Amino acid sequence: MRAERFDRDGAAPGGITPVILCGGAGTRLWPLSQAGRPKPFLRLTGERTPFEDTLARLSGPGFGAPVIVAGHDHAAEVAAQCGSVGAEPLAVLLEPSGRNTAPAALAAAVRLMARDPAALMLISPADHAVEDAARLRAAVRRGLRAAASGRIVAFGAEPLQAETGYGWLEPAAAAGDGVRPLRRFIEKPDAATARRLFCAGGHLWNMGLFLCRADALVEAFRRYAPDILARVSAAMPAATRPERRRIRLASPHWDRLAPESLDVAVMEKAANLSVVPFRGHWTDLGDWNAVAAEAARTQGSAPQTTAIGCTGTYLRSDAPGIEVVGIGLTDIVAVAAEGRVLIAHRSQAQAVRAAAAACGHGGVQPADTRCSCRPWGQFSVLDGGAGYKVKRLAVAPGARLSLQSHRHRAEHWVLVAGSARVTVDGSVRDLMPGESVHVPVGAIHRLENPGAGTALLIEVQTGPYLEEDDIRRYADDYARCGSTRPPAMPEPANVII
Amino acid sequence: MRAERFDRDGAAPGGITPVILCGGAGTRLWPLSQAGRPKPFLRLTGERTPFEDTLARLSGPGFGAPVIVAGHDHAAEVAAQCGSVGAEPLAVLLEPSGRNTAPAALAAAVRLMARDPAALMLISPADHAVEDAARLRAAVRRGLRAAASGRIVAFGAEPLQAETGYGWLEPAAAAGDGVRPLRRFIEKPDAATARRLFCAGGHLWNMGLFLCRADALVEAFRRYAPDILARVSAAMPAATRPERRRIRLASPHWDRLAPESLDVAVMEKAANLSVVPFRGHWTDLGDWNAVAAEAARTQGSAPQTTAIGCTGTYLRSDAPGIEVVGIGLTDIVAVAAEGRVLIAHRSQAQAVRAAAAACGHGGVQPADTRCSCRPWGQFSVLDGGAGYKVKRLAVAPGARLSLQSHRHRAEHWVLVAGSARVTVDGSVRDLMPGESVHVPVGAIHRLENPGAGTALLIEVQTGPYLEEDDIRRYADDYARCGSTRPPAMPEPANVII
Repeated sequence: MRAERFDRDGAAPGGITPVILCGGAGTRLWPLSQAGRPKPFLRLTGERTPFEDTLARLSGPGFGAPVIVAGHDHAAEVAAQCGSVGAEPLAVLLEPSGRNTAPAALAAAVRLMARDPAALMLISPADHAVEDAARLRAAVRRGLRAAASGRIVAFGAEPLQAETGYGWLEPAAAAGDGVRPLRRFIEKPDAATARRLFCAGGHLWNMGLFLCRADALVEAFRRYAPDILARVSAAMPAATRPERRRIRLASPHWDRLAPESLDVAVMEKAANLSVVPFRGHWTDLGDWNAVAAEAARTQGSAPQTTAIGCTGTYLRSDAPGIEVVGIGLTDIVAVAAEGRVLIAHRSQAQAVRAAAAACGHGGVQPADTRCSCRPWGQFSVLDGGAGYKVKRLAVAPGARLSLQSHRHRAEHWVLVAGSARVTVDGSVRDLMPGESVHVPVGAIHRLENPGAGTALLIEVQTGPYLEEDDIRRYADDYARCGSTRPPAMPEPANVII
Repeated sequence: MRAERFDRDGAAPGGITPVILCGGAGTRLWPLSQAGRPKPFLRLTGERTPFEDTLARLSGPGFGAPVIVAGHDHAAEVAAQCGSVGAEPLAVLLEPSGRNTAPAALAAAVRLMARDPAALMLISPADHAVEDAARLRAAVRRGLRAAASGRIVAFGAEPLQAETGYGWLEPAAAAGDGVRPLRRFIEKPDAATARRLFCAGGHLWNMGLFLCRADALVEAFRRYAPDILARVSAAMPAATRPERRRIRLASPHWDRLAPESLDVAVMEKAANLSVVPFRGHWTDLGDWNAVAAEAARTQGSAPQTTAIGCTGTYLRSDAPGIEVVGIGLTDIVAVAAEGRVLIAHRSQAQAVRAAAAACGHGGVQPADTRCSCRPWGQFSVLDGGAGYKVKRLAVAPGARLSLQSHRHRAEHWVLVAGSARVTVDGSVRDLMPGESVHVPVGAIHRLENPGAGTALLIEVQTGPYLEEDDIRRYADDYARCGSTRPPAMPEPANVII
């Protein structure tokens, strides 16, 4: 019955394809968000991550399987989190490097257009929170007819205060809940402008959510950003053998793209924009104040924290085994993550990004990444000193690391959970928990998880040089052979992993 | 020439014996101070620990080798820190349990009296800071004649404010720098009393420093606290074979002592007290405000911290690899130690002890001791989860752990620095860095450091039960056989380790 209603609204038979953009780093959520673990995949509030919440929110009657656009290193994380909410993506487009939302959204559109130019796509950030998902889906349905007719439909949340942290939308008409033309985009305003917009009424917060046909978006790029279209099309491999639905965007073309937001590249210029208001609770979880407010709304007490005589204060620990204790604090946010503790007055929430950069971590590029995602899973640095380093490796079910060797270090692996298959200089061995294997300097070795659950290993490295770049790869499931960094020379295109 | 002057003042030929009491837990310096790592042995400010500073301060012409009184678990720490400042103790008295300063000071007096009843002892806490050590030694010299004549000489620092955190001394006469009778002790006063004492002038802060003959102190206990004297005498082993000058006080007698401070047990009652004023900078480093002030006076910027737009704020990280970043803070103290982060308004510095206790850590008794001293060295917990735990063991040169077995866990050791000798079920093996050994469940094993430097090992435990009490000891250099806790039944007395 619902499917029928969608058909009447003009949706394609496959329903709306959610296009979920996972590129948000969340630099103002440092130190929790770091290069290896961006915001969509973090458990910010509650049991689910923003990415998992987004998958669940944009599913059900009228929605088809989603297209995910994410960083190459987060392939295992995407698969794991899709699995945890039972989502089966139509495709996972893996970016060799982050280039903001314009190339990411366009890549999905190009991909969809190859199947059906009229395919309806709903572009959505992966790192926002919405209280009432049904109400949001209802708003999306109100935009269907306009989108099917070729318009690009933005969605705007009803503003709650004179917010300077969001972009704003100015509809051509203010009344009602239905679709109406969009007069203009307003970039993040200063305080005076925000106050004026808020008091004038009728303006909306830009949710970064867009509903349109694939061909309409491609056409907008052809008109307003043809260079981006050319490079994205070149980076799109001819998908002959998409394994696990992953499609790797080709490095040299993709990396030459200049980072550009979807709003700036086309939305602020296109003439065929409409807007639908969303009358519900929405937040971009953009800084610690937003996360604190959301946590207060949805969570009980935070684990691993104790507040004594504190007011207006948000204490949080995401570092395993580290407890945060506050005494007599007023209006403080304190967040412990692996390797870092941030303590800020809440008036300084917007300054976190700059402060993190000033600390030499570039906000998203810590010198020593304590916890990092990899295509095969993730690792954490537990300890290190002169001549040694200790890591915990978490290898995803079915995943394997590259076949590799090191010139300067030996490695010693102890399996502590799950199962592992280890190859050292051609000899293969299966490990049970508590068993270990030694990898001498120079040995060609590989680690694989043949089991159904995550494999956990403690790795003890010894040697005079222990950096990540002492690695020679002989074979890799994730096309990383030859170097730990994207190669400067063009690599074979059309690589499907 | 200096020795001559001491002789003229009446010092015994061996000079003054510093008696350094290392029992101070420093509960208000939580989370840096915890059960396994009390305040005297922590690097609070600068390169040296308060214990090392105390050893250096009470040395040179006129001073003999010190007697150290410390917790049994800190024997390796005492030896290492004595070594780092070139101190060779006359004796190290090891307490099976902490019983405050009265039993500790008396044990040293009883021990010294066996050699020379007239021996001059200078009882000193191990966890205070003094700016000008020469000036303190000069103050001590001014008390020598009175002490040699049988008086107990206290030392009092000139007060800088109406401090409620210190005890006070009221001399019978106020003028001059010389020795004069003490009228009375004043326990930590309330704010009004402290203000009155400060404004009246002539009163001094009780430094916890006492100069007297060994027989004078023993006589004071005989008179005012005979039960303590009886138990301490019983706990003193007949020292037939003091290895490395360590003397273990006998458990059952010692553990039956009630904790009592030296001031309360005898000093507040004795009639033969004198006092010498000390006109120099002194602090008991008693809370984070005191440490912050001392750090500001003596240190540059703290490592692993970044303060942006902060005023009156003290940021500190003693947790390896954890950086503390403060933004826009006013009058905050934030301290990261392994496993805990404290963030307090500076007005709450005195509340830290109670707050830590309220958090369920008993201030000095954390549930999971992340870093703990042991007689053979120390260990840190690096990681842990279902079925596994990872530790870093630091074994002191020449030390060895007990010969032991575990019912529920296997252990896997990887040597990462120094050298190690491992015995597993009777077979002995020497490890080089990078080498490892597996200890199966139930195997009788032992770890030893035959080298001249500290041995570092990564220990990976696996099994269903991983607590410290799963240990059976067959032989131990530190008399811990049979249990991880002090035994309830009397153990063989006169154990020399």
